[in-house]
Amino acid sequence: MSRLNILYAQSGGVTPVINASAAGVILKARERSDVIGQVYAAQDGVMGILEERLVDTAALSAAEVTGLRHTPGGVFGSCRYKLGDPDTDPTDYARLVEVLQAHEIDVLLYNGGNDSADTTAKFARYCQHVGAPIRCIGVPKTIDNDLAVTDNSPGFGSVAKYVAVSILEASLDVMSMSSSSTKVFILEVMGRHAGWIAAAGGLAAQQAGDPPQIILFPERPFDQAAFCAAVKRSVETHGYCSIVVSEGVQDASGQFLADAGTTDAFGHKQLGGVAPVVAGIVARELGYKYHWAVSDYLQRSARHIASATDAKQAFAVGQFAVEMAIEGATGQMPVIVRTSDAPYQWHVEAADVDQIANHEKVVPDHFITDDGFGITDACRRYLQPLIVGEDYPPYDASGLPQYVRPTFKLVTPKCPVRG
Amino acid sequence: MSRLNILYAQSGGVTPVINASAAGVILKARERSDVIGQVYAAQDGVMGILEERLVDTAALSAAEVTGLRHTPGGVFGSCRYKLGDPDTDPTDYARLVEVLQAHEIDVLLYNGGNDSADTTAKFARYCQHVGAPIRCIGVPKTIDNDLAVTDNSPGFGSVAKYVAVSILEASLDVMSMSSSSTKVFILEVMGRHAGWIAAAGGLAAQQAGDPPQIILFPERPFDQAAFCAAVKRSVETHGYCSIVVSEGVQDASGQFLADAGTTDAFGHKQLGGVAPVVAGIVARELGYKYHWAVSDYLQRSARHIASATDAKQAFAVGQFAVEMAIEGATGQMPVIVRTSDAPYQWHVEAADVDQIANHEKVVPDHFITDDGFGITDACRRYLQPLIVGEDYPPYDASGLPQYVRPTFKLVTPKCPVRG
Repeated sequence: MSRLNILYAQSGGVTPVINASAAGVILKARERSDVIGQVYAAQDGVMGILEERLVDTAALSAAEVTGLRHTPGGVFGSCRYKLGDPDTDPTDYARLVEVLQAHEIDVLLYNGGNDSADTTAKFARYCQHVGAPIRCIGVPKTIDNDLAVTDNSPGFGSVAKYVAVSILEASLDVMSMSSSSTKVFILEVMGRHAGWIAAAGGLAAQQAGDPPQIILFPERPFDQAAFCAAVKRSVETHGYCSIVVSEGVQDASGQFLADAGTTDAFGHKQLGGVAPVVAGIVARELGYKYHWAVSDYLQRSARHIASATDAKQAFAVGQFAVEMAIEGATGQMPVIVRTSDAPYQWHVEAADVDQIANHEKVVPDHFITDDGFGITDACRRYLQPLIVGEDYPPYDASGLPQYVRPTFKLVTPKCPVRG
Repeated sequence: MSRLNILYAQSGGVTPVINASAAGVILKARERSDVIGQVYAAQDGVMGILEERLVDTAALSAAEVTGLRHTPGGVFGSCRYKLGDPDTDPTDYARLVEVLQAHEIDVLLYNGGNDSADTTAKFARYCQHVGAPIRCIGVPKTIDNDLAVTDNSPGFGSVAKYVAVSILEASLDVMSMSSSSTKVFILEVMGRHAGWIAAAGGLAAQQAGDPPQIILFPERPFDQAAFCAAVKRSVETHGYCSIVVSEGVQDASGQFLADAGTTDAFGHKQLGGVAPVVAGIVARELGYKYHWAVSDYLQRSARHIASATDAKQAFAVGQFAVEMAIEGATGQMPVIVRTSDAPYQWHVEAADVDQIANHEKVVPDHFITDDGFGITDACRRYLQPLIVGEDYPPYDASGLPQYVRPTFKLVTPKCPVRG
């Protein structure tokens, strides 16, 4: 039997540790060269497959692959491109098969979140349906932590650590100055539909009264009166109020607060930024001096403060996916199973992507305090282990992290240009 | 001769390493207990002196003082309070003398930026004028790096490192996704009048074409046409454009871009945020998909990614100020003198605060490239050493930095309540 050839692709929003999963794939495949042949990677995710822009990871030196373990972003490029339904329009799927077969690829490892799990399921089924000897295995990744089945998603733990550390630090700043200056600080974090990242801010509070005093979750409709009362209470009790707000917070009618109709001087609608909207409410209703920050991509790429637990898990799911490929899996994904909170114990096992695709895991009710502004002890028990450990990248003499940016040569195309 | 009693106070915006200066003061004073008696600290800066809210740093354990070296914020509290001119209204100055004399304090060590240098000069002169045996010595600190005489300001190096690392990381994110998603990323940084922090973003670019491709300085009037042309050129050349913008960028008429008249749904003027204004220009004029981040207090408190050089210098100026106190100085401040760029060599010496007060050191012309969007090699030679070295805080088992938050007992007041 000939050795298996693998194609690895990154999909959707990148994470601080998605390249660690790539490293896990490549290193495990090199270790198992008895059964694994080529490991290709697609440039810019599935778009690179459709356009036959593939690279051969054999060109990566051992130092470069090691470097991937601590380099943020997606080193092969990722994309936002949604494949349709193969039952109504199989064009893209047929093209994927064409390109993969031209390069004698046996298994596609698709590293992504919810949409990618759906694509993995559809493509695996399509290949079976048309009798193409190609298998498809997912590799989990998303900073949003909204993937079902897996206990947590690789990528989330590092963002959680960044947010917990950042709100702790900024709160120490605000509390130093609150007697005569800023009294309210607002940090906007990602999470359009699920408040996991916002919840992670709550880890900064280790004792009652510690900041952040308020977390605004997309799982709870924004109640301006209750919010203002809570801000006022915190300022009167502690002298200041520290707030973490999820970008996905909505009012009772389901409108995103970030879309509250802010317009610029020219009457153009301003996009994004729930933090300035919340700041405006604080200023208008309470008159407190405020500051706000929007961490945006900084949180999603902050490899310099990655969680060691997260980096280890991202690497492990990449390795495990290769083992699943060797075992003959398709339509599956490695997931993280937690067997103990304290001491934290976990392992990786395989799950069907059908169970994962099109489910969105939001923060459950019992993880949010009754007032809607904090996390419960149960939530803390769940979140805490995910941010444990530091896994610093190496730094060079200029004071910057040594992130790798390998240059790639495209594999010679073998298919007709995409029609 | 009786031993000297010292009062230490923090003033103005805090930095990631201002507490390292406090640690320098306290440890040097403990080392020199042969000549130094009490070391008090004011709560909330000069406000705490006026209100006679003093604490005795003798209550701090050795572990707590060591903890200050890696704890952001201002552990004793700081304030924004501008003392007037003693010639026209000496009330505050007389009160300072009253409180200091009541506690037999010989020297005030005032840890701050430009305004504080001015206060130090005025208070030192006032004491000489009224014959009060009190001396006043400044301790430099400001993230803005706009202090004259000193080669650089403690606090700046750590913010510079945070900004350089953050824009490097976010740029790796953007470049991974730009083929199908966000093409322009904008990071807003502090610096109302001086572009030093924005300039530091340029350190992330180590080779021609590296991000950030554009830096917007307050030292250069914003030229929308030239800016849009540069963004377009970068997107066409590299596929994306990474931008660092100083909060203080102004148009040719001197209006802050951040005050460009953004209003919310209710017609209320929105405060702050030059990044969304720049993003709006990109969207309107070029139609590129964008993301923006505002780091705000995160940059000013990010002790987790402090520059080791900066932390060392902040500690050193605190120590040196105590030596100056012992030598009998007044109306002076320790400054950092650079004697070599490579290898980087520096030492601390004393300078008159009169030379420092009311001067604002902006980024000089020869540090900014001709197109106004980048830093020159001369600028890089100046900035680079300031971000060298990592000085991580210790982390506890929960995955958070072990920042200290000592509780203080107020020294029994001896003066009448302030009228």
